[in-house]
This record gives sequence, C-alpha cells and structure tokens, in this order.
Amino acid sequence: MGKSESRLCYLDNNATTRVAPEVVAEMLPFFTERYGNASSMHQFGGAVHSDVQKAREKVAAFLDAQTPAEIVFTSCGSESDNQAIFGVVEALGESTVVITSAVEHPAVLQPCKRLEERGHTVVRVGVHGNGTLRMDEYAAALALPGPKLVTLMWANNETGVLFPIVECARMAKAVGAVFHTDATQAVGKVPISVRNSDIDLLTFSGHKIHAPKGIGVLYIRRGTPIRPFLLGGHQEQSRRAGTENVPYIVGLGKAVELAGSELRSGELDRIRALRDRLQAGLSEIPDTVVNGSLEFRLPNTLNVSFPYIEGEAILYHLSDAGICASSGSACTSGSLEPSHVLRAMKVPFTSLHGSVRFSFSRYNTDEDVQQVLSVMPGIVRTLRALSPFGH
Amino acid sequence: MGKSESRLCYLDNNATTRVAPEVVAEMLPFFTERYGNASSMHQFGGAVHSDVQKAREKVAAFLDAQTPAEIVFTSCGSESDNQAIFGVVEALGESTVVITSAVEHPAVLQPCKRLEERGHTVVRVGVHGNGTLRMDEYAAALALPGPKLVTLMWANNETGVLFPIVECARMAKAVGAVFHTDATQAVGKVPISVRNSDIDLLTFSGHKIHAPKGIGVLYIRRGTPIRPFLLGGHQEQSRRAGTENVPYIVGLGKAVELAGSELRSGELDRIRALRDRLQAGLSEIPDTVVNGSLEFRLPNTLNVSFPYIEGEAILYHLSDAGICASSGSACTSGSLEPSHVLRAMKVPFTSLHGSVRFSFSRYNTDEDVQQVLSVMPGIVRTLRALSPFGH
Repeated sequence: MGKSESRLCYLDNNATTRVAPEVVAEMLPFFTERYGNASSMHQFGGAVHSDVQKAREKVAAFLDAQTPAEIVFTSCGSESDNQAIFGVVEALGESTVVITSAVEHPAVLQPCKRLEERGHTVVRVGVHGNGTLRMDEYAAALALPGPKLVTLMWANNETGVLFPIVECARMAKAVGAVFHTDATQAVGKVPISVRNSDIDLLTFSGHKIHAPKGIGVLYIRRGTPIRPFLLGGHQEQSRRAGTENVPYIVGLGKAVELAGSELRSGELDRIRALRDRLQAGLSEIPDTVVNGSLEFRLPNTLNVSFPYIEGEAILYHLSDAGICASSGSACTSGSLEPSHVLRAMKVPFTSLHGSVRFSFSRYNTDEDVQQVLSVMPGIVRTLRALSPFGH
Repeated sequence: MGKSESRLCYLDNNATTRVAPEVVAEMLPFFTERYGNASSMHQFGGAVHSDVQKAREKVAAFLDAQTPAEIVFTSCGSESDNQAIFGVVEALGESTVVITSAVEHPAVLQPCKRLEERGHTVVRVGVHGNGTLRMDEYAAALALPGPKLVTLMWANNETGVLFPIVECARMAKAVGAVFHTDATQAVGKVPISVRNSDIDLLTFSGHKIHAPKGIGVLYIRRGTPIRPFLLGGHQEQSRRAGTENVPYIVGLGKAVELAGSELRSGELDRIRALRDRLQAGLSEIPDTVVNGSLEFRLPNTLNVSFPYIEGEAILYHLSDAGICASSGSACTSGSLEPSHVLRAMKVPFTSLHGSVRFSFSRYNTDEDVQQVLSVMPGIVRTLRALSPFGH
C-alpha cells in the first residue's frame, strides 16, 4: 500500500468505528481525576460506582431490559459470546445440544468447537443462497432431545443479512431451550426490545457504535441458567471478575444514548440512502454481484463481489485511494481462507475471492460514496486485465 | 460517609492508580483520529497495528522477555490469571495437580476452585505468621506425581509480602512443573527479569501502574503448553480473541516506560521512606500491629491492625477526612468476611477486623502522611471508646 494524499474515506464501520467526540468527553475525567476503584469502600471509589450504575441504567433502557441488573459489562463482544456460551453450557450440564448457524462470528464458532471437543453436540444450521437462515433446519435442530442452548447472530457482520431473531427466540422458548443472540452488528441499526422477546442473552460491543474498542455487554435475563466465565472478585454482581473499566463503561453509556437518538431520528434512513447509492453506482460495473438478501439486511452494509478478481487486491488499490473497506471480517483477516459466510451461501468460486464489504456510520456523507465510485471502475478494469481468468 | 472539604489524600494505590497524564496524552489520538481496527487490511488499520507492536516491544523490554511475541494483551489481571490457569490445565490434561497458596487473589483462587470441581487436584500452600510462604509445604507439593501447574503471587495485594518467586520457579522447573506468577502488585515496584528466570507465565495489570483499568498482560514463555481461553478471532497470534483495545495498549506501553524509569531512579526509595514514616507515626498509637514481614515487603504497602475496632469503621472516618485507604482488597469488598490473607497468617481475632491498608504511588507526598497522622489517633480513640471489647 503506497502513500496517499487522498481524503480519508472510512467505510469499514462493521470492523470498528470512530469514537464519538461526546463519548471521549464523557470518559476523560475518569482517567486522571475520578480514578477511584468502583469497588472500594471510600467515598472516592463509591462515587465512581454510581457512575457505573448510571451507565448500566442507560444500557438497560437502550435494550429495553426489565432491570439494570440484567446488564453485565465485559471487555468485548467476543468475551460476551464466550461467557454466554461456556457459562450456559456449564450450567446446563454434561451433554448439552448447542444449536448455532454456519455463518456466525468466530467468537461463537470457536467456543462451539471447543464444546464439541468436550463431548457436547453442536448443530450448525445452514443458510440459503441469500444468507437467510434455513428455518426448516433450525426447527429440526430444536426437536433434538436434551438440554439446549441456541446461539444465533442478529445480523451478519460480513453481509449485513438479518436473521429473524425474535421468531427464532420464540421457537427456542417453546421447547425450553436457552436463547443467546450475538447482536454486535445489529445494535444501533435495528430497534431491539429484549423485554418483549424470548431472548435470554444478548451480546454487543461498544466499538461498533462509536464507543472504544475494549468494552462489551452481555444482557442476561433474570433467571437464566449461567455460571460465570471470568472468575475472581465480586465485580458485576459476581458475574464478571476484574476491576471495572470505568471510563469505557461511562463512555458506553453515552454511546448508547447517541445510538438511541439515532434510531428514533431519520439518521438510519440517511445511511441507508448512502448505501443504496453506492450499491446502484457499483452495479453499473459489469458482472457486479450483491451478496446477501436485499430485503433482510442492515441499512449500513453492502457486500459486493467483482468476479474474476481478488478482493484483497481491490482493497489495496482502495487503500491507496484513501478508502477503507474490508474483504470480510477483520477478525478472520490473515487467514487467506475465503469467507466461511460466503461459502455457506454457496457463492460461486469466481465471486468468492472477489468480495468487498463497505459499511457506513453516522460520520459518512455522499462525498464518501462519490470517492468510491470515482475509483472503483478503474480498479476493476485494471485488475481484470491482469486476471488469469481473463474476461 | 459525609461530605468533606478536605484535600484528597489517595493512599489506595494497590486498589487502583491515577492514570498518568503522559499515558492519557498517548492514548487520546487513538479514539477519534487513529481509530482503525489493528487487524484490518487497509493502511489505516495497518498503521495502528504497528503502534500495538511498539507497545508490545516496550512491555517485552520492561519484563526483559526474549521476544515481544511472548506478550499477550488481555482486558485485566483477572483475565490473565484465568487464561494462564485454565489455559495451561487444558493443555496439560485431565488430572493436573495445581499448586497455589492460601493467600492468592480471588482471580487465582476461584479458577483453582473451579478446576477442583472438575476433578483436578488443588494444593494450597500455607504461609507463616508474617505472610511468607511455607517453603517446606511447597517442596512437598512439588513432590506429588503427575503433570503440575504452580501459580503463586509475587507480592500480596493486602500486605505487600513478597514470595521468593525466582526461587519458587527454579524449584518448579526442577520437577517439570509449569510456573505462573500473578505479579500484579509487584510489577513496577520490584525489578523483574523473566529471561533470567524459570517463570513460564506472568500476569500483570495496567491500572496498578498508572495505565487505565481494563488492560492486562499475560507473559507466556515460548514453548509453554497453553490453550487459548477467550476464543474467537485471530488477534494476539490466536492467543486472545477480541478486537485489540488499541488506546489502552498504547497507553500501557507508555506506562511501563514510566515505571521502568522509576525503577532505575530513586523514586521507590522516596516511596518507601513515606511508607516508613507513616508506619512509624501510626505505631505510636497504642497496640498498633503491622501485618506482614517487614523484610520481605513491597516498598509502597503498609497493612496495620488497630485491635478491638472495625477496619471498616476506620475507613468511613478516614473517608470523611478525605483519605482513601482500604480494609483489604477492593475485589473482595462487600463480602463482610474477614480477609482470607490475614486469616491464613493466623492474625488474632482482635486484629483481624481492624486492619487497614495504606498503599502509595509516585503521586504521594509527605503531606499525605501528615494528613493521615493528623486524624488517625483521634479516630482510633473515638472508635475504641465505642468498642464492645472495651479497652
């Protein structure tokens, strides 16, 4: 990747987001002034504890939980997923059936694999060509005997495709299964009310909604069978050990306030319109394929394939033009394997390696769309001229 | 706790520390400007990745590790302890002997308890009345058959008492045991060189050395048998999943630089002198007992008992006078149980509930010592007048 004088065009918001200046302002006093330990006995620590509680109330309100005690702060979405999956299976006992999908994030897939090693049964429900869940397979899995944990993502990080989580949770409840959803990509982009659902556990991460990297949430419905995962002190009502990361917790409280306002305003329509303009523009390049359902999809995500060329080569050229995008998930980058999500969707070989994900946030404007559209046709043309597949 | 107009006198640095202004300055650009995902393919994320690597090099240099690849960033000391203990035992197999001490932090004791439930053998080595390790018991534990993990703290969080970790590691190595030390309280206060030791794993936490709460380190010597604990993406060379907390990692890099300079300067002698003046002053109050070895002790920690009165009552009065101290560990506060550390030391009942820990940092001055000495005799007199034990 060469140097670039271009304006930064950041369209990789499903990987991570810019921290909102309002969030930074909220956090700053907690580093050098209000630095007490929230679990300390003195007034200086106690005051900080009440700031943590206020943030917990904000997150509870944002998810529409019944009580702030249902909110546990963790260090990231991955930790929340690990806690949900290992914690529930530890509570359910020795031969649990874990039902998940083939397109989950590695933070769900890897714990499931470890549980399989330990003798539990794992069922990975498939998806259709457009990335939506095979509901027949899901229903069949729920019919298996024994204690069950379901863990399904609300929105796919690579394609933005939405699963019908409220319906899936209802079906799980009907057979007595515990239901967890990794809502990391959905939070802030679709309205969520856990109270009026059968969701028992819900994961999300601060850094996808303009809080910093290093703070996550696990919502745990009252009465859900779960044992702690990270063991030690009495923090988080003995559900997650480790000194509370007060600045980030307080920052997350602000971030969910901002995300809540955004959901109630027309901001997501504006973002959707930007995404749709980019999609329309890129579709003019010959053979462009949009991956994933157009109907059941996050408003901010666009996953496109440019057949016959490599996604990574496209990314290098985009990066040179000051544009940040992704070939899939940052969490699997470096693996060189084609995306497990697109493979599960049976995207053809010619497109599988040529996919690029663009993902928007509140900080994007039409200028970003124009910047991509001004360079992309040329990049595709150049790379196709070099492609061994010809064209 | 009432309101106070007093100057803040913060002597609870073993609970947590003020974030150094230099650390905050280092972190700030990574929130709103350099916010890329360190695992992304584009130049914007890649640049951040190299900042993470620089911080890793600084931590490796600080601990005198052989290579930066031996450093794993985690979300806190507790997570590092959990990863070390669960990760090594998962690698060692089904019936591992875990050797620890009776006075460890809950982040070590609780994972050991969970392993015991799962059928592993846990041996808790006792301590002498001055808090030092019973080396005879330790040697006997090492003689047990089977694969072994030793996990011993370098310095006790409540008393500051030091274990001879370099010697303990040497003994463990001699019988082929894996050796972990929770050095959370020792780091920055005693010189540490893992290279010239038989330590396989070492835990520490940023927020005890003026980095923020929410960042930890696990040093893992090359070749140590360990499986990952927090599963998911490929971050940290597949040893710890979760998007890298870049601001805190970079901040920790700065914090260890500052801590390293401090170790090389006379700063710890200055801190020790402050602590010793406080100890001398408090010893003039009748019946005051200093808990823990005077010889093998951190330079910044003072744990004193005022027999016949409650430590928590003392803390309330101190808090009213603007003084932050602790009755033991913030991580066990709220439990109302007397300290497991002092119990293991067989501190008499009359002193067990009357202990207070004062812990210093670079930001303390003689004014802090004077502030405590100006109020403590009166507090002890008042409380003893009310004590059912009379005096």
